[in-house]
Amino acid sequence: MTKIEGGITAPKGFCASGVAAQIKNRKSTRKDCAMLVSDRPCAVAGVFTTNRVKAAPVLWTRGVCARKTARALFANSGNANACTGSQGMEDARKTAERVAEGLNIDPEQVCILSTGVIGVPLPMDRIFNGVDASLAALSPTGSADAARAIMTTDTVPKEMALEVVLDGGTVRLGVIAKGAGMISPNVATMLCIITTDAAIDPEVLHGLLQGCAEATFNRICIDNDMSTNDTVLCLANGASGLPMLKPGTSNYAKFARALHEICMNTAQALVRDGEGATKFVEIRVEGARTETEATKIAKSIAASQLCKTAFFGQDPNWGRIACAAGYAGVDLNPDHLCIRVGDVEVVHNGLPTDYNESDAAAHMQLKDILIQVSVGEGPGQSVFWTSDLSHDYVTINADYRT
Amino acid sequence: MTKIEGGITAPKGFCASGVAAQIKNRKSTRKDCAMLVSDRPCAVAGVFTTNRVKAAPVLWTRGVCARKTARALFANSGNANACTGSQGMEDARKTAERVAEGLNIDPEQVCILSTGVIGVPLPMDRIFNGVDASLAALSPTGSADAARAIMTTDTVPKEMALEVVLDGGTVRLGVIAKGAGMISPNVATMLCIITTDAAIDPEVLHGLLQGCAEATFNRICIDNDMSTNDTVLCLANGASGLPMLKPGTSNYAKFARALHEICMNTAQALVRDGEGATKFVEIRVEGARTETEATKIAKSIAASQLCKTAFFGQDPNWGRIACAAGYAGVDLNPDHLCIRVGDVEVVHNGLPTDYNESDAAAHMQLKDILIQVSVGEGPGQSVFWTSDLSHDYVTINADYRT
Repeated sequence: MTKIEGGITAPKGFCASGVAAQIKNRKSTRKDCAMLVSDRPCAVAGVFTTNRVKAAPVLWTRGVCARKTARALFANSGNANACTGSQGMEDARKTAERVAEGLNIDPEQVCILSTGVIGVPLPMDRIFNGVDASLAALSPTGSADAARAIMTTDTVPKEMALEVVLDGGTVRLGVIAKGAGMISPNVATMLCIITTDAAIDPEVLHGLLQGCAEATFNRICIDNDMSTNDTVLCLANGASGLPMLKPGTSNYAKFARALHEICMNTAQALVRDGEGATKFVEIRVEGARTETEATKIAKSIAASQLCKTAFFGQDPNWGRIACAAGYAGVDLNPDHLCIRVGDVEVVHNGLPTDYNESDAAAHMQLKDILIQVSVGEGPGQSVFWTSDLSHDYVTINADYRT
Repeated sequence: MTKIEGGITAPKGFCASGVAAQIKNRKSTRKDCAMLVSDRPCAVAGVFTTNRVKAAPVLWTRGVCARKTARALFANSGNANACTGSQGMEDARKTAERVAEGLNIDPEQVCILSTGVIGVPLPMDRIFNGVDASLAALSPTGSADAARAIMTTDTVPKEMALEVVLDGGTVRLGVIAKGAGMISPNVATMLCIITTDAAIDPEVLHGLLQGCAEATFNRICIDNDMSTNDTVLCLANGASGLPMLKPGTSNYAKFARALHEICMNTAQALVRDGEGATKFVEIRVEGARTETEATKIAKSIAASQLCKTAFFGQDPNWGRIACAAGYAGVDLNPDHLCIRVGDVEVVHNGLPTDYNESDAAAHMQLKDILIQVSVGEGPGQSVFWTSDLSHDYVTINADYRT
């Protein structure tokens, strides 16, 4: 597979746009409405927040995914349309209808995504203006504008595309995403929109997307909060002209690898741009009895406030790592615990080695930190990606809502 | 019951001391060794960390509690004697032997508690000096010195005593405790030493202590880390002369209430002195189907980094509270969610009320914040206490170990 330019408009048959419509408030000048349109119907699959409090657009777009076909997508930042009751659902439907009218399609084939402040009704006059302006701005090179329009506290837009050579031709995959705040396991305030011109059955696509999300978006952690609006969507329009991807074929396997790569890169980009993040930390765990247990241990370390502040402080504080492993809820034998900071083994079989403190400290000064934990001889291994907990995180999140 | 002076030496028959022995390093001048001695054998019960990585003193003192009788206790700060392997166990035993020798008692009746840095062997020469100096300093008014000696990042010592009038006379209960860092559900880096001159069977005492700890120490949350050394111990020496407390009697009920009060006050004092804490936040949840579900929701809010930074920012950000309730792992109906900030109802049946923002904001400016969440009509209710997440928390915990 080859990295190419173009984001979600790199695959054939997709147009996109991003415009400013003052959704958050009338003083706002940044782009805050994004649109994606396919020139033909798409198979669509989604992975959504598991939070019991789900925003209206999540409920609406789950409905679209249940019907398995989408033609277009409209997203806004600045307002999450969450905790807005029946009016919120009504507003999501009206937004889809406005989009559908402009494109002369069925509103039930329009996905709606929202991110931003909770509990405030959508300003429908400005949403309608945003829809109309987005329609007018649609372009086969509109991905970058759409990527900017969905940003909230992100400092950089996230966009990527891949071209994959299959037997019989090439397919493309593209992605835009936003994250930054509240990133946590189980998909958290993240909007991720994936397009492809491959042809694939929507149920097969759903299984594939769920598997990829489990191994990527559900293995990242900035804080531990899970939002009401998280959505990963994939739209496949078949415009590549290649035949339907069939599970078990080598074409399918290549496509699956590319989709995993798209998700992995996006998930890691979200961690790197986590609120206040100064470090990107990979936690690898091996030797557990099962992958599930390894994941529990990795997550426990990745989510530990004390480990995360130690990462910020560039302190190879293995005591906190051992401690977080110990309360992961796994029946772990402390006498088999080994911990490496970068290449430096700091704990062997539960006891500190005579490692050189400055070697371990030198690794902690890198932007990318690797922590490897071995807990025994079992086959279970896993990996988690996390950021550090910095002063800027507190500053960003202690700010009064404005 | 009446509050009295004297901490753990308020009950009859107990002496205590606290001395400086340079345990952390040779430059340290603060008190770091504490001793408690009863003039007769005590029934002893303990509640310990559930972390799989347990420090040597925890393993040693669990053994004492299993034998149900203690005469003395020695505690040090500055070194946790955790992740120190078989040498750590040996050192705990040698410490107990040194104490026992000085008091002419059985070393198997000496509880050992340690708190401080992980993975460094105890400096046994200085520990022995600390034991000897503690023996020499024992006093019937030594509680305050002992309370100071067990402090680590605590800013104030925690000490309290109660006198309870029973049929036939009075009994006293006293406590010293340290916490501050890593305070979390399931008892986290906390040492809590409770004494009483009541006479009570050790197994009855253990049941009572466990129940009290569940309702108090396991309902507090500063960060979410759980230490390798957490210990709550209760020593009952019967020196009041009153007959053995029997479950089902009114004397037993009065004693149980006093023990609960001691634990509750101590737990709340630990939250108030949490690392970097500027707020004391009570989270009350009601209307859940069960108490367990109510506790899960309260804990989810209490542990949320985003809620805790909002508390620091004095922001009545109910969206984050609703969000944390939503991912608590409870089958909650968002349409029944009501949230009060102080007396101000900000959310009713899932929707924001037309509350006055400045009323809610005014409550958030108090030192003590009350958040009440109602999730339905069920009988389940619970409460959790937490602190805010401040810049100082990051500063304290990002500091390189020194």
